[in-house]
Amino acid sequence: MKKSSHLLLLSALICLPQLSHAEKTIAPANDIEYPKNLTNWRVIGTSIRNDNNTLRVILGNALAIKAARAETKKTNWPKGAILAKLVWKNDILPTWQAATVPGNFVHAEIMVRDAKKYATTGGWGFARWTGLELTPHGKDSSSAQACFHCHQAASGTDYVFTQPAKLP
Amino acid sequence: MKKSSHLLLLSALICLPQLSHAEKTIAPANDIEYPKNLTNWRVIGTSIRNDNNTLRVILGNALAIKAARAETKKTNWPKGAILAKLVWKNDILPTWQAATVPGNFVHAEIMVRDAKKYATTGGWGFARWTGLELTPHGKDSSSAQACFHCHQAASGTDYVFTQPAKLP
Repeated sequence: MKKSSHLLLLSALICLPQLSHAEKTIAPANDIEYPKNLTNWRVIGTSIRNDNNTLRVILGNALAIKAARAETKKTNWPKGAILAKLVWKNDILPTWQAATVPGNFVHAEIMVRDAKKYATTGGWGFARWTGLELTPHGKDSSSAQACFHCHQAASGTDYVFTQPAKLP
Repeated sequence: MKKSSHLLLLSALICLPQLSHAEKTIAPANDIEYPKNLTNWRVIGTSIRNDNNTLRVILGNALAIKAARAETKKTNWPKGAILAKLVWKNDILPTWQAATVPGNFVHAEIMVRDAKKYATTGGWGFARWTGLELTPHGKDSSSAQACFHCHQAASGTDYVFTQPAKLP
């Protein structure tokens, strides 16, 4: 290769735009695709788990938001509704030490509603991606059984722990 | 009034559509208008205040989200950026008792960035609306001084307590 070709290759590499997560290929988890645009979804709630010192926000795609914000006594999650949790380790806010705030990012996890497709896991597909690099946590649907096992505790609310927060 | 007129009036009242908050007139607080569509804004973070047992999510308008998600060491809030906090009393999640979740809605509060207009309160306009009915908490800009007083603790971060959560 000529010196000029090397220079051309080098400058092409330097000039390559930094890919955002939206453009990066994120591998599926449990055969489920990572939803594009997830961090732009609207909010359903928040929670802190005192058993493992993590904070989270719960977001929803458009179908989930419509269901969560309907004024029904029990939320009726339709086919295609996706609930997402963004989870962080607890941290202390330096400027207000009585406040617990998001520290290191732990994982993103989703529940996808499809009663037929995911009949063996309560009508929900479960998936998790760990760390800011969004490494898929499970490789196939068998690992969703582990998620479903914990979610048995919420069998009375369609295996969903999240109760949509009251909004003004 | 004839009986038929009474019936007409009654049926008109019954048939009046329930106004959503978007359609209701929400009075300004501290001379600041309640932002339309606030609950559809994107998320910046979440926090729990252990000194008063409240949980919150922090949302931002488009300008605030752009600033919060820019990969800068210190967030540079531009003129027009609005940060909003939706605040709930802590509740225990019945299906996972080690989790603290939003209970009764307490208030919505916002900070509006305008260095000139709000020069006496650190370049931010402060406003709060209490309860799901969004009753304005302050009537004029003098009550914003009370907000600003607490926010002095965050003088090193432009009087903003919120540190944008790390997002994947």
